[in-house]
Amino acid sequence: MQHLLRVGVAGLGTVGLAVLALLERQAAGLAARSGRKIAVVAVAAKETRKERGRDLSRFQWFDDAAKLAASPDIDLFVELIGGADGPALAAIEASLSAGKSVVTANKALIAKHGMRLAALAEQKGVELGFEASVAGGIPIVKALREDLAGNAISRVYGILNGTCNYILSRMEAEHLPFAECLGEAQRLGYAEADPSFDIGGLDTAHKLAILTALAFGTRIDPDAIAIEGIKDISLADIDAAAELGFRIKLLGVAARTSAGIEQRVHPTMVPRSSAIAQVMGVANAVTIDADAVHELTLIGPGAGGEATASAVVADIVDITKGLRTPPFGVPVAALAPLERAPIPMHEGGYYIRLSVYDRPGAAAAIAARMAERSISLESIVQRRRPGEHGKPAAVPVILITHATYEKLIREALAAVVGDGFVAEPPQLIRIERG
Amino acid sequence: MQHLLRVGVAGLGTVGLAVLALLERQAAGLAARSGRKIAVVAVAAKETRKERGRDLSRFQWFDDAAKLAASPDIDLFVELIGGADGPALAAIEASLSAGKSVVTANKALIAKHGMRLAALAEQKGVELGFEASVAGGIPIVKALREDLAGNAISRVYGILNGTCNYILSRMEAEHLPFAECLGEAQRLGYAEADPSFDIGGLDTAHKLAILTALAFGTRIDPDAIAIEGIKDISLADIDAAAELGFRIKLLGVAARTSAGIEQRVHPTMVPRSSAIAQVMGVANAVTIDADAVHELTLIGPGAGGEATASAVVADIVDITKGLRTPPFGVPVAALAPLERAPIPMHEGGYYIRLSVYDRPGAAAAIAARMAERSISLESIVQRRRPGEHGKPAAVPVILITHATYEKLIREALAAVVGDGFVAEPPQLIRIERG
Repeated sequence: MQHLLRVGVAGLGTVGLAVLALLERQAAGLAARSGRKIAVVAVAAKETRKERGRDLSRFQWFDDAAKLAASPDIDLFVELIGGADGPALAAIEASLSAGKSVVTANKALIAKHGMRLAALAEQKGVELGFEASVAGGIPIVKALREDLAGNAISRVYGILNGTCNYILSRMEAEHLPFAECLGEAQRLGYAEADPSFDIGGLDTAHKLAILTALAFGTRIDPDAIAIEGIKDISLADIDAAAELGFRIKLLGVAARTSAGIEQRVHPTMVPRSSAIAQVMGVANAVTIDADAVHELTLIGPGAGGEATASAVVADIVDITKGLRTPPFGVPVAALAPLERAPIPMHEGGYYIRLSVYDRPGAAAAIAARMAERSISLESIVQRRRPGEHGKPAAVPVILITHATYEKLIREALAAVVGDGFVAEPPQLIRIERG
Repeated sequence: MQHLLRVGVAGLGTVGLAVLALLERQAAGLAARSGRKIAVVAVAAKETRKERGRDLSRFQWFDDAAKLAASPDIDLFVELIGGADGPALAAIEASLSAGKSVVTANKALIAKHGMRLAALAEQKGVELGFEASVAGGIPIVKALREDLAGNAISRVYGILNGTCNYILSRMEAEHLPFAECLGEAQRLGYAEADPSFDIGGLDTAHKLAILTALAFGTRIDPDAIAIEGIKDISLADIDAAAELGFRIKLLGVAARTSAGIEQRVHPTMVPRSSAIAQVMGVANAVTIDADAVHELTLIGPGAGGEATASAVVADIVDITKGLRTPPFGVPVAALAPLERAPIPMHEGGYYIRLSVYDRPGAAAAIAARMAERSISLESIVQRRRPGEHGKPAAVPVILITHATYEKLIREALAAVVGDGFVAEPPQLIRIERG
């Protein structure tokens, strides 16, 4: 057996402590797998004296993560500080520059600097592992980078944010409005005090940007993502979804289309019978459409200390065993620029919820606005609100369209609004089918 | 870029031809991933002159697979002949002995000879890839061998036979009896003329034996599997499952218990809300319970030429990139003997369908036989058959038990039969919960 692989860990939050625990707990098994013992020898954390519930005195301590990263006393650097720039970036650069492989769980950083860092790793002949940066314990990075090497991938999509999935699951299960479920998620620690990063879709977008690069062999481009969050999803939408055989999920979707690569993050109607629709609570799921395997779905924990640590440890073991792979599957120089498909060219089905003044001719006028643009309807549901008598001011009308272009739907809805038949702005939710 | 990696493929059935097609179609991408061009240069097939719908004249032809395997003109040997022994085994041995890595899709062979072949590969310092041998295009071998390296696994279970899943799906969807759905599967080419290998559970058992070794670090032991097929599943069971919130799937289950490693293949009640219950038709699915990731599920195509070829190609690319791993994750010498948990010690819930003579005291007597052995019941459903009037000879009674030992359930049922209250042998189906 070769000499010890000495690991340095920067960042001792939930994930950092879980990595220390896993490497210790599985030490014998990891040595058998790697042909080499693996042990943490040094750590870096801002607060060195903070009580962390375990004895960390045997490690060499650094207050500067970059110093740990460049230290000759470690062979591999694990970055768990977080943040797209600042100390995390400085430390990773220091490690790669010193010819040491890096493992990170930092999605924001990889989404922003992944291309440059991967190129640096390639140049230095070392590895940059970021399995933990997307979908926690789900091995989606390796699936795209290695398992599907023989496939041309046409679409990758999934539930990549547990906070949003928890909220949407609770809205449906308890029939409680968004704000209340968000508050509950915050009390349970599933959502931050400022939840905008999760519920606004940005967290999902970072992860999607990474998946897109791996799936399509394109350069990461997080700015080329159309992003909508979940805050405007109402119980009326949740109910209508259930009635029409759908469930609402915040999805990240990347697809190769004739107009380029489409990257979207938005609340989505998925068929209730799909595997992804069954994923409730904080779990994550990713589905890949590819020419040889047709469809592959991975479901698992998207967050949490131990689940994320599991992905970090898998990267460490791969690197210890001598894995040699460009971080994005192919060398950065071989990644194509991402040609962005404009969202108006998106082709798919749509769910539309309108609040329609109950006047003669309203339904016919709406249908005509759709027909003018060759938008065909799969279903129309119009129903007087229960408990209301007489002529209400407005009634909900739900439309499900067959596949059409987003440009046409937007035009049709603008025309409907212009006709003066609707009492509120229309709700529009894209449908994603398996 | 290094010189060409020269591949030899033995066996030109559906999978073999799909491997040729994929390697050709993805040649540029695979070269970018591997840093090396990969191409098939030689093939072996029994019938050299058979029409296969494509020009295979540019390959060097062998009629003896073992000669191809040992040929100095190839660097890597792909075995797609099939069969646990005979030419497939001889060829793999020849390749490994000649110091050439092997990729195979042959589950029967790996289940029977995997330990010896892996040891030979390790001794020769070459690789033995068998991702394609279990669950077709689902990358479950790599998931267990690499992605979950930091985890202690407690259970792995799944739908590993598409034929059985197709039949059970059709029985439910069309409400047709087993024999009819089997005939349909045969007409569609999903089942063999002699379907006993699939529907009897042996095919699932081969795959399970391989997964067990990977999950628990134990030596393969296909003889230590309790096997029941699906032929006795009736529409009455399918209906009762639906009513009680379950679905019936043929599962392979391997679990670490206090009594040892349990390996079972049998029709199983799974909760209808589980991801695995949504897997219909010929698809496969595997769920892993592990300490760090908690639960991970992979769903995808379990068979088919291109899906299986996808797994073969992934193995080829890994080996081309210089992957160095013991075939079973840890060296064969480090695998523990499999300590078999006896099936009477199996602990779990049970579904029991009885055909009970409609006499006073029957239900009470059955309940008493359960209570005597501390078996507690989650539900009892007794219902007169619809459309029957008067006093029928026997009525169906469905019991769902809480977790208990199989030994106790078997004893209780023997006592119930002995009491003379039942008109037919009881139906017993194990319940598997997430």
